[in-house]
Amino acid sequence: MTNGARNLLDTFVAGGIEVCFSNPGTSEMHFVAALDEVPALRGVLTLFEGVATGAADGYGRLAGKPAATLLHLGPGLGNGLANLHNARRARSPIVNVVGDHATYHQRFDAPLQSDIASVAGTVSNWVNSATRPEEVADLAAQAIAAAVGPPAGVATLLLPADASWNETAPAIGKVGAKAGFQPVSAERFSAVVDALRAGARVGFLLGSNALVPAGQLAAARIRAATGSLVLTETFPRVSARGAGLPQFDRLGYLGEFARAQLADVDTLVLVDAADPVSFFAYPGQPSRLCPESTEVLELCGPAGDAVAALEALAEAIGAPATAPVSEASRPELPTGALTASTMATSVARHLPEGAVLVDESNTSGIFVAGATEGAARHDLCTLTGGAIGYGLPTALGAALARPGAPVLCLESDGSASYTLQALWTMARESLDVTVVLLQNHAYAILEMELARVGAHAPGGQARRMLELNDPQLDFAALAAGFGVPATVATDAADFDRALAEGLGTPGPKVVVAPLPRL
Amino acid sequence: MTNGARNLLDTFVAGGIEVCFSNPGTSEMHFVAALDEVPALRGVLTLFEGVATGAADGYGRLAGKPAATLLHLGPGLGNGLANLHNARRARSPIVNVVGDHATYHQRFDAPLQSDIASVAGTVSNWVNSATRPEEVADLAAQAIAAAVGPPAGVATLLLPADASWNETAPAIGKVGAKAGFQPVSAERFSAVVDALRAGARVGFLLGSNALVPAGQLAAARIRAATGSLVLTETFPRVSARGAGLPQFDRLGYLGEFARAQLADVDTLVLVDAADPVSFFAYPGQPSRLCPESTEVLELCGPAGDAVAALEALAEAIGAPATAPVSEASRPELPTGALTASTMATSVARHLPEGAVLVDESNTSGIFVAGATEGAARHDLCTLTGGAIGYGLPTALGAALARPGAPVLCLESDGSASYTLQALWTMARESLDVTVVLLQNHAYAILEMELARVGAHAPGGQARRMLELNDPQLDFAALAAGFGVPATVATDAADFDRALAEGLGTPGPKVVVAPLPRL
Repeated sequence: MTNGARNLLDTFVAGGIEVCFSNPGTSEMHFVAALDEVPALRGVLTLFEGVATGAADGYGRLAGKPAATLLHLGPGLGNGLANLHNARRARSPIVNVVGDHATYHQRFDAPLQSDIASVAGTVSNWVNSATRPEEVADLAAQAIAAAVGPPAGVATLLLPADASWNETAPAIGKVGAKAGFQPVSAERFSAVVDALRAGARVGFLLGSNALVPAGQLAAARIRAATGSLVLTETFPRVSARGAGLPQFDRLGYLGEFARAQLADVDTLVLVDAADPVSFFAYPGQPSRLCPESTEVLELCGPAGDAVAALEALAEAIGAPATAPVSEASRPELPTGALTASTMATSVARHLPEGAVLVDESNTSGIFVAGATEGAARHDLCTLTGGAIGYGLPTALGAALARPGAPVLCLESDGSASYTLQALWTMARESLDVTVVLLQNHAYAILEMELARVGAHAPGGQARRMLELNDPQLDFAALAAGFGVPATVATDAADFDRALAEGLGTPGPKVVVAPLPRL
Repeated sequence: MTNGARNLLDTFVAGGIEVCFSNPGTSEMHFVAALDEVPALRGVLTLFEGVATGAADGYGRLAGKPAATLLHLGPGLGNGLANLHNARRARSPIVNVVGDHATYHQRFDAPLQSDIASVAGTVSNWVNSATRPEEVADLAAQAIAAAVGPPAGVATLLLPADASWNETAPAIGKVGAKAGFQPVSAERFSAVVDALRAGARVGFLLGSNALVPAGQLAAARIRAATGSLVLTETFPRVSARGAGLPQFDRLGYLGEFARAQLADVDTLVLVDAADPVSFFAYPGQPSRLCPESTEVLELCGPAGDAVAALEALAEAIGAPATAPVSEASRPELPTGALTASTMATSVARHLPEGAVLVDESNTSGIFVAGATEGAARHDLCTLTGGAIGYGLPTALGAALARPGAPVLCLESDGSASYTLQALWTMARESLDVTVVLLQNHAYAILEMELARVGAHAPGGQARRMLELNDPQLDFAALAAGFGVPATVATDAADFDRALAEGLGTPGPKVVVAPLPRL
């Protein structure tokens, strides 16, 4: 005989799960004990659940398969909820395990009792609770299947302590082969071909499934043949970028900019993307970004085969076999003061081939996309769900998903302060993550948004809600406190040197980049 | 004309709310702007929502009236959820404002859209959403009334951006007078009197409403007259303690200990306390802590007048007018190595009259309750809901609720790592909080719980999930990074000196106390 916890972990390993981002409590102790018996599942401890869930998001995005989490009851799920929200928007595969009180204990309303399922339901595409150890293996297999999709997502398994500790026969849940993407319907396909052949001004909006190299190359061929506009969604899960890939603009975060991008489009073709809407509402501005007159066609949704559809489309319209791509280029060493622009230049200069770039640079990163068009090939992760504090945890997860690949995280000071504890796990696991800590001493994006929503210029109290300069945060000290060496760049050339050193040195490193506000 | 945000803030001020713990985003910008027009509401910025909600918990516990929070959409609520869970268990009055997308924007499923109400419902006793600016003032008044109670609790008001920014006539919601506690029913009262007169072995379990000085003195009189056992609940919201008050044991956290405390009780009288249950479930152990044969009588629940009931009971049984209380005592300066015991001694030596003691010391604080029986009169806050990371934020809120009163926070290293960002707001607001950072480099309570739940002795992977020593956290560096001066104590006498200095110096201070594990 064994117990439910052991069957859970055996099923995880059989289902391809290699990592569990953990922050356990008493009700999870049998899961923890079982880690000793199942060394193929790597337990990665975090100091805070938001780090665990954000790391699982990053891992899922880059590995293309789920990590598990281990969270402690309702409060642990709460602490992890914001990054599960981002993961939901990224459609990251995650098997989210939330320990629960023993089944017979729940009715007594002990201090940690709460309604876990209702909270989990807001971020999960599958929620279930084991009630007996005999059920655990099968439910674990169901959770893996639900997490993997397609479409992928967060599958939350509630694990009562007695379902974990009670004896049962050894069992491994059967995890089926991952289903493939669905072929695109002939009807949708024909509608797009018709629009292109009719000479309409067609725009393509590419979501994450289309942003692998093959999808991008097919879209570039279509653009070369038709002159269509091709945009990527504003915040892709992962987008391949750099030299050798075509250059596409992202749909703007600012509604007024996005509306200008879409103004002349007769037909907008969605390829794993949603009909674009403004990130926030603004007084007097419509939520939808397309002109009312624009026809919106969905070529394929999240479960559809975006790459095959784009390639078939390129063939159908007789597109050329190749299309222009970005040429490799390496900018000169920047000099003078460190600015958002010189920072971006240095990133472009030093980003290594095959790197993962996790971007939570917000306003300070405005020049990065342009600067890195000719940089070495890399994968870009962005803030899919708008819940800040995703960058450091996602970088941690990405590093575990891509052993050997350097990870560069561009992290704003305001966002960094949410989940800074991720640095500790980076040190603990000796991960090759270089964090550029962009410090402008403000929620600079809110200073901009305050005006954009039509609120008056801030006086003393309001301004104080947007500034981070009293006291100033000393990120070099904070990083050192969590066990990560840090350096503070003094000017553009010094930043360039420190960034190169960080990327070239094993283990985590923080480079603090003091920047003026834009 | 004005707007919904202004009416909200005016109603808050009219309803007695003085502080708003904030972490705003774009959808809250009109609330932020309105802070300039309503200076009577003090905006207190936090770097993370869990700090804001924990601070509101501490404020509500000590001020006896609500603070407001300002959180950004569903992810902001998620980040604040764990400390709202603790606040729910503490029955702290909180008006929890969660910004939402404009009403017309919600159907477009923008990246930050989520089901806020379902999450809020798990921690709130009142949830509502404004749909028009005309409703805001009245809903704000309803929220205040729901937060104040009795019983008090978390009232969550969802505030869509357009309900905040749209014009409306100036209005202030009418907040009624706070309802008093309800008198205890004659039937319940008689049942307790009968049990006492019948010579049953009666035990009293006092919850937070009974733990003000008057309630404690009445309970001590009953004990003096009858020999009854008087215990306090395990984790009270606030308990008055120190010299001049009677000495009561807390019901034990460990079920085996609590069962021994209750073993001889024929009749257990609950005074604003629940029928006691084990904090967690353990294999083979019952959840309830009383013997099956014990009769459980509820004298009063959370809305009942616990103090009046205890005083009337003392009179009814002819209890003496006074009862023994703890005498003031000041232990000698401890010497030798710094241990959990010498730490507790120093706390007892230096705790100032009228201080607030926020205790999240977990295993390291085992000697504090005994040591402080004869200390200067103080108010003790404990971890009501079991969601760790409450201590630093609660201390921050307590300092704002009790200007002039020193706050001492005993904080374990594992728990501190959840919401360490609270230090920054302590520095920003120049609060008199002394933090004793108890560092034993482990989740020591889990090392104990692993064995108690019957899991095997941990090997490499399992042990690694319970230890915080690779790398060691440098809390002096972390505190400095957040703008708070810190010192690391070297031995018992050095800690004693540093603690005295911290308590005697204005502004926040961290004293790191390296401790052996128990």
